[in-house]
Amino acid sequence: MEIQNLASEAKQASISLAGIDAQTKNNALKAIADALHKNAAAIIAANKEDLDRSEIEKLGTPLLKRLKYDAAKIKESIEGITSLMMLTEPVGETLSATQLDKDLELFKVSCPIGVIGVIFESRPDALVQISSLCLKSSNAVILKGGSEAVKTNKILAEIIASASENAGIPKGWIQLIETRSDVNEMLKCDEYIDLIIPRGSNEFVQYIMNNSNIPVLGHADGICHVYVDKDADLDMAVAVVTDSKCQYVAVCNAAETLLVHESVAKTFLPQLKISLDKYNVELFGCDKTQAIIETKPATEQDWKTEYLDYKLSIKVVASLDEAISHINKYSSKHTESIVTNDKVAVAKFMALIDSGNVFWNASTRFCDGFRYGLGAEVGISTNKIHARGPVGLEGLLIYKWLLKGNGHIVADYANGHKSFTHENSKKKFYI
Amino acid sequence: MEIQNLASEAKQASISLAGIDAQTKNNALKAIADALHKNAAAIIAANKEDLDRSEIEKLGTPLLKRLKYDAAKIKESIEGITSLMMLTEPVGETLSATQLDKDLELFKVSCPIGVIGVIFESRPDALVQISSLCLKSSNAVILKGGSEAVKTNKILAEIIASASENAGIPKGWIQLIETRSDVNEMLKCDEYIDLIIPRGSNEFVQYIMNNSNIPVLGHADGICHVYVDKDADLDMAVAVVTDSKCQYVAVCNAAETLLVHESVAKTFLPQLKISLDKYNVELFGCDKTQAIIETKPATEQDWKTEYLDYKLSIKVVASLDEAISHINKYSSKHTESIVTNDKVAVAKFMALIDSGNVFWNASTRFCDGFRYGLGAEVGISTNKIHARGPVGLEGLLIYKWLLKGNGHIVADYANGHKSFTHENSKKKFYI
Repeated sequence: MEIQNLASEAKQASISLAGIDAQTKNNALKAIADALHKNAAAIIAANKEDLDRSEIEKLGTPLLKRLKYDAAKIKESIEGITSLMMLTEPVGETLSATQLDKDLELFKVSCPIGVIGVIFESRPDALVQISSLCLKSSNAVILKGGSEAVKTNKILAEIIASASENAGIPKGWIQLIETRSDVNEMLKCDEYIDLIIPRGSNEFVQYIMNNSNIPVLGHADGICHVYVDKDADLDMAVAVVTDSKCQYVAVCNAAETLLVHESVAKTFLPQLKISLDKYNVELFGCDKTQAIIETKPATEQDWKTEYLDYKLSIKVVASLDEAISHINKYSSKHTESIVTNDKVAVAKFMALIDSGNVFWNASTRFCDGFRYGLGAEVGISTNKIHARGPVGLEGLLIYKWLLKGNGHIVADYANGHKSFTHENSKKKFYI
Repeated sequence: MEIQNLASEAKQASISLAGIDAQTKNNALKAIADALHKNAAAIIAANKEDLDRSEIEKLGTPLLKRLKYDAAKIKESIEGITSLMMLTEPVGETLSATQLDKDLELFKVSCPIGVIGVIFESRPDALVQISSLCLKSSNAVILKGGSEAVKTNKILAEIIASASENAGIPKGWIQLIETRSDVNEMLKCDEYIDLIIPRGSNEFVQYIMNNSNIPVLGHADGICHVYVDKDADLDMAVAVVTDSKCQYVAVCNAAETLLVHESVAKTFLPQLKISLDKYNVELFGCDKTQAIIETKPATEQDWKTEYLDYKLSIKVVASLDEAISHINKYSSKHTESIVTNDKVAVAKFMALIDSGNVFWNASTRFCDGFRYGLGAEVGISTNKIHARGPVGLEGLLIYKWLLKGNGHIVADYANGHKSFTHENSKKKFYI
């Protein structure tokens, strides 16, 4: 199908989907879970085709591991769907209510965004997670998965579409697109698509942000910082920096730059180096760092680089203010952590750091939808509007203003016959 | 100053502004109110220059009226600032809290967006309203007012900058730009500006949306609909349609298209015509409409047109579903109203209409920040994300995720030594 037609079909479906009740949606989620269980053998067979082809194409071991979708992962996906069914219905919630005048009541009520385009990496479980989140929040979804997972994605999307549509969800609510040129077509569908959530390599996300009029929620770089303050517990700082850098290097919430207050640098940096050496971390230090431990010289470019590797840039700073300035200048506004016991420093750091996630005495690696207790996540946003940090169900919702009158007209208020009362109300929206 | 430098200065100021306490901001608002009062004569003199020049340039009476900023309007502006001072501090509010594990607490806390660019029409009171809303929400602001108000805007911006900066607000938080080419430069400042809110003509807003990577919150068209259902109280429908169309035609929330259920069209349309004729409203009807009352023929283009004038397009529809489809196809997603006594029809209309404001038995003209009780408004949004409808203080805020740990590292959770508890908490953020 042409991408424009497919997006238009998703838009149509999204309109009806907005009016589908909670029970029907939960029944559909149940039907999807059952269908995944029933079709497990076929899914695993399709996934084996993807795995075999990718092995021949010499895909690296970590990528092969992410691509694998076996019985255990299917079970996890089903558990995810089951926990989503348990959540309160997110659509139609009254967020606020105001009595504007007698019999004139205003309600701010949650509703779906409409059609969400999601581009994700080669992890088939992501397809299940994202589409079930969209269904729970009454959004239609257009999915583009990693090309390595093409067979697995296809069978999963078919199973989900068929099971949900048989359970009363409007046909066309879930659409799968397959090629990079499909994505380019999708970027032009601003008439039909309300939001794009891209995941994956930063170049690709940047490309999408630069090539569409559709709002984009996501992050390109993840240049995260840890700042070790003069009042840090240095053993704790070693543990937090090591975890932030080394626990999993290929991800956006791994630390790329360490800032150290000059009054502790001489004691701290040699301790840290012992810990990082166990992981063979390559260090790039400023002049002051190089005077304390052996590192390669850090250039201006290092402060702007997301290594996604066992590499760390290090800068010694003269003050908390210098640390804050450095972070606000070079950070990708993802996640920054301060290690200190000085509460005044914490307050300043947390107020002035212009990032979506600001941590105190904790590893940057905690920035994640599951770890935050959001359940599933559709992505991590470094945007400054709508949603920041890990985006779960809530980021897929917006609101409408619903006004109930009894023939009220503005002329009566403009000419002074009536006036507004504007009383906050505890009422839930009702008809 | 170069626009890039000015935007960079605003960004710098916005960082410090995020950490300014409620008392200092309220003192600054008080100082602004006092300074407006003290400098009233100079403001009125500057405004007279603008008025005199605009009269020579043959500006129309309604525009001259909006441009006028006299003692009464200054008093209104001061009252607006005073009521803003009374509002609860919006920054630093804990929106949710989760205990992730022992001593590992996550808080979602409201914070300013950063730097807001606002482009507004020739109403000097808008400058005062927008800048005080930005100050209350700790955002820096770059203002571009209508060129007719250039002298008034200049003195107002100077007074606000000077009074607030003397009261402890970071220098540079309010910036005024003056020309259309300044705006073009501003659209390129995505490094410094976080959000643009354009008001004014739809071509201009569309131009801005198409020419910047900065997120834009606003609306281009206002193509609002009233649907008169088969179960409408027809007297009420006449009043609501007349008010929606005629109470003030030059605004985005005026109705442009009327949809009428065929079973009441024969009775209703002649009654409506008597009412609209008093305002000399020019009518453009579909074939069925033309068979009942005399109108010009409506073309496909009429359904897409924001007349902003005493003109109304009319379509007779066979069902509620046809009305909903027509609206979702042609509406600019601003405001739509249904007139009916059928609660089932209302429920369907309110769930399926994909617009920011959906009304029942009330005029579309109620869609407005003041009428909604939001206090001031910075604009009306037809976006599907972040904020919809009239945007007040709340639309100028976003949140950060703040995590407090005690040296917590992710490795402990990945290797199974620890596990997450994810308990909802009632705690407010504390250090």
